[in-house]
Amino acid sequence: MADTTSAEWSAAPKIYVENVRNGDAAYHISEEAVLKSLISVSSPAALTCRFSDERDIEAFKAADILIASRLDTAFIASEGRTLKLIQCTSAGVEKYAPFTWLAQSTMLTNASGVHTKKVSEFGLMATLMLHNRVPAIATRQRNHEWSRQLRGTAAGLRVMIYGVGALGGAIARSLHRAGFFVTGVRRAGKSIEGGKLMITPDRVLQELPNVDVLILACPLTPETQRVIGLRELSALPRGAGVVNVGRGGIMDHSAHVSCLASGHLSGAILDVFDEEPLPDDSPLWDAPNLMVFPHVSADAPDDYIERCLAILAENLKRARAGESLRNKVDPTLGY
Amino acid sequence: MADTTSAEWSAAPKIYVENVRNGDAAYHISEEAVLKSLISVSSPAALTCRFSDERDIEAFKAADILIASRLDTAFIASEGRTLKLIQCTSAGVEKYAPFTWLAQSTMLTNASGVHTKKVSEFGLMATLMLHNRVPAIATRQRNHEWSRQLRGTAAGLRVMIYGVGALGGAIARSLHRAGFFVTGVRRAGKSIEGGKLMITPDRVLQELPNVDVLILACPLTPETQRVIGLRELSALPRGAGVVNVGRGGIMDHSAHVSCLASGHLSGAILDVFDEEPLPDDSPLWDAPNLMVFPHVSADAPDDYIERCLAILAENLKRARAGESLRNKVDPTLGY
Repeated sequence: MADTTSAEWSAAPKIYVENVRNGDAAYHISEEAVLKSLISVSSPAALTCRFSDERDIEAFKAADILIASRLDTAFIASEGRTLKLIQCTSAGVEKYAPFTWLAQSTMLTNASGVHTKKVSEFGLMATLMLHNRVPAIATRQRNHEWSRQLRGTAAGLRVMIYGVGALGGAIARSLHRAGFFVTGVRRAGKSIEGGKLMITPDRVLQELPNVDVLILACPLTPETQRVIGLRELSALPRGAGVVNVGRGGIMDHSAHVSCLASGHLSGAILDVFDEEPLPDDSPLWDAPNLMVFPHVSADAPDDYIERCLAILAENLKRARAGESLRNKVDPTLGY
Repeated sequence: MADTTSAEWSAAPKIYVENVRNGDAAYHISEEAVLKSLISVSSPAALTCRFSDERDIEAFKAADILIASRLDTAFIASEGRTLKLIQCTSAGVEKYAPFTWLAQSTMLTNASGVHTKKVSEFGLMATLMLHNRVPAIATRQRNHEWSRQLRGTAAGLRVMIYGVGALGGAIARSLHRAGFFVTGVRRAGKSIEGGKLMITPDRVLQELPNVDVLILACPLTPETQRVIGLRELSALPRGAGVVNVGRGGIMDHSAHVSCLASGHLSGAILDVFDEEPLPDDSPLWDAPNLMVFPHVSADAPDDYIERCLAILAENLKRARAGESLRNKVDPTLGY
């Protein structure tokens, strides 16, 4: 089913770019980058590039396309009613739910899949680290404690990936290539490359006893909110490890810390948290055998925005051809 | 050149096994394991299995073959003069140098190559960890410090492996497969599988500026003692990382710590130290961006001794066929 009719996309688009002042340079969307990415598609009829604290309201109101890393949903609801497309440069859009602010005639696309190579490397590294008990070794180092516990090779390690979209799917492929047994969890249960066993979320609890490393890589939606809690973590075998590269809200962190403290779980590598930066007084900083990563698993600085803009360029081509768009967020599913 | 003549090996051997009391179970050499490993080669004429603190001196004196994880060189020099072969179950034998205690008629073999799969996984993990600045992230976690520094993918990373014998050679293959550019350092400079560039030790200094991760995997010999010092570490580009899975004595640790403290090096993963366990008051425990691993990179517990004994079994076959032995230590080279 096409998302659009080609006729409404035939004219050169008016584009509005909104950046966050003092944001990370890796996420800055420059005029040049936009023009360069659209070179094979179309010259924009207008291109306005502003920080969010000095908006050009007239240009915003006239725009067909908004490109932004952070969405001011109230402002869009009031002044962006004629937008045809919003390209958000983050992959997760859970903070904008519910999507009542989004006009029926506006499509929202996200940056899902922009850094599959990066996250697949991170997933492999984190899995090897958990297998080799690196979080426990790091915790012991704080206490000058030498404890030599040998670990075998990781061959045949059993990994469950909760959510096998762009992030989880890329991790599945790299772990499969590394010789691990990958179980993928997916709403549809459909097979993916690298997934030896595919299950639907309702079967997770019964499969968890067969899992050495659980990797959370799903979006945060009403369905996945705190979906991994004490019951799920307790169902993992003693010595299992957990990686979270999805969103903090997927997990019950206090249940997680108690499973680490009791020794039921051997380690954790968390890259996402309920609040980021993780507050200084969070108990997670000092939790035993837990490593805090500062949300770095999936973003590479070199070409992040270029890859986001490539999605937009491809979508403009698709729109003109009357085809459905890539990375379109479904407001009812929330991703 | 054959190490031996087949005639002296035709009789069933008398074997003496020496274990260390209260040693790690993974290194215990049991009678059953010896018998099982030799099943296709020969039944021993005698098999004596003792802890080192309750020796059977008569059996020791009569033995042809000694299997031991720790060598009591003075005792061997006085009571083991008729030994034909000593199978040491550690890979590094530097602590037994110089080899003046070893009779001309006794061959010494080591466990080199027993865990190439294990160390190749560790090398890949450590390289990805340094690329992703995990040692710095772990150091910051101690201070509850969130600092988001994005890193690109590791593709094309330039890794120098100092010593490409059994350990380093296995790491070279796995890093090459992962898409990294591997430079191997080898006395002979001969090519190895996975090594894009092979150099001799005298060229190391000029190549270090082109290296992102330096992995030390050589044996400790008079030639390699403190071979990586301030001059070598300073020749690495800013932001480089260092892994040591060889021996502590290869490195100048105080030069290393000062290069980490100054920020010239981004991180270190050390698995071997001058003294092990690392003493409680060692400055390495708290050095910034340095991770202390308790000598776990190359030993897997599941089948360590079985694999050592497989070397012995193969060597018995070779000896009978008048062929040269695997893993024979050259007393002049020290490995």
